[in-house]
Amino acid sequence: MPYTINQVKELVREFPDFPSEGILFRDIFPIFREPEAVECLVGHFVEQVRGLGSPIDAVVGLDARGFLFGPLIALRLGVAFVPVRKGGKLPGGVVQAKYQKEYGVDVFEMQADGIQAGQNVVIVDDLLATGGSCRAAEELVGMLGGTVVLNAFVISLEGLEGRKQLKAPVYALIEC
Amino acid sequence: MPYTINQVKELVREFPDFPSEGILFRDIFPIFREPEAVECLVGHFVEQVRGLGSPIDAVVGLDARGFLFGPLIALRLGVAFVPVRKGGKLPGGVVQAKYQKEYGVDVFEMQADGIQAGQNVVIVDDLLATGGSCRAAEELVGMLGGTVVLNAFVISLEGLEGRKQLKAPVYALIEC
Repeated sequence: MPYTINQVKELVREFPDFPSEGILFRDIFPIFREPEAVECLVGHFVEQVRGLGSPIDAVVGLDARGFLFGPLIALRLGVAFVPVRKGGKLPGGVVQAKYQKEYGVDVFEMQADGIQAGQNVVIVDDLLATGGSCRAAEELVGMLGGTVVLNAFVISLEGLEGRKQLKAPVYALIEC
Repeated sequence: MPYTINQVKELVREFPDFPSEGILFRDIFPIFREPEAVECLVGHFVEQVRGLGSPIDAVVGLDARGFLFGPLIALRLGVAFVPVRKGGKLPGGVVQAKYQKEYGVDVFEMQADGIQAGQNVVIVDDLLATGGSCRAAEELVGMLGGTVVLNAFVISLEGLEGRKQLKAPVYALIEC
């Protein structure tokens, strides 16, 4: 039976104190157990992107949970999917951006021929927290001459104000 | 323009000495830059699965590159997608299996309610090398009472004989 987007939201499960005490983990994997829910979620994101009114050339997804729906959204839009990965995992010429993690600094990379100058890009990931990793992805797109027209998330933790770190507009299905 | 499966194969690029000397890295990401190629690849895997003649209940994908096409194949088949991740990343009850890596041992986990007893499962990943990680995924499915009916890969490095480590049949688009 087809899902409504509100029914999709209800599939997200909460796990207190995971992966460590005081953290409320929100688990999106139950959505992927229901193909009709995936269909609804992908259609919903595609609607948000089409609603921008800009032509889109690529969907950029962050390793690893952005890989779950990035290619689905890209295929539905008929555009490229381009990955952002931790340093050292992508072969060939890459661009790099650093981002601050809770403990120390990490490096994100994108293949230098993944995005062409002048292209419009949507970045997708499951969760917007402090915004550091998505900000790094925005930088990588900018280094290649692309423009981020939307950052799309399943969940945004509004209290962490990640939205303020990002240059492009943010859409989140669940704001909490 | 629609791709043939042979054209999809030709998109895989080779990078000698990456990530370290003596390793020939095969890069599948160019496939994801061409939506028609993704469409062809997904359709091709779906045909392999349907050709088994068994009803399928779930597609299991290995973190992270199995996440790229696992959900696409699952959605096309109208079944669940269930992830296998490194230890400590999945909340709630999990089952665990160890596997040997080049240096040391790693742990894979699957959510205990991801697969039900009696279900038929297809495991997908980008690359079959020594078979250790896929063997661990087969074990996880078995612990939950499921049956792996196919292990499907984009690429199989036949010289490493990973196929011999696996209980279920193997399909690989590219054997090299």
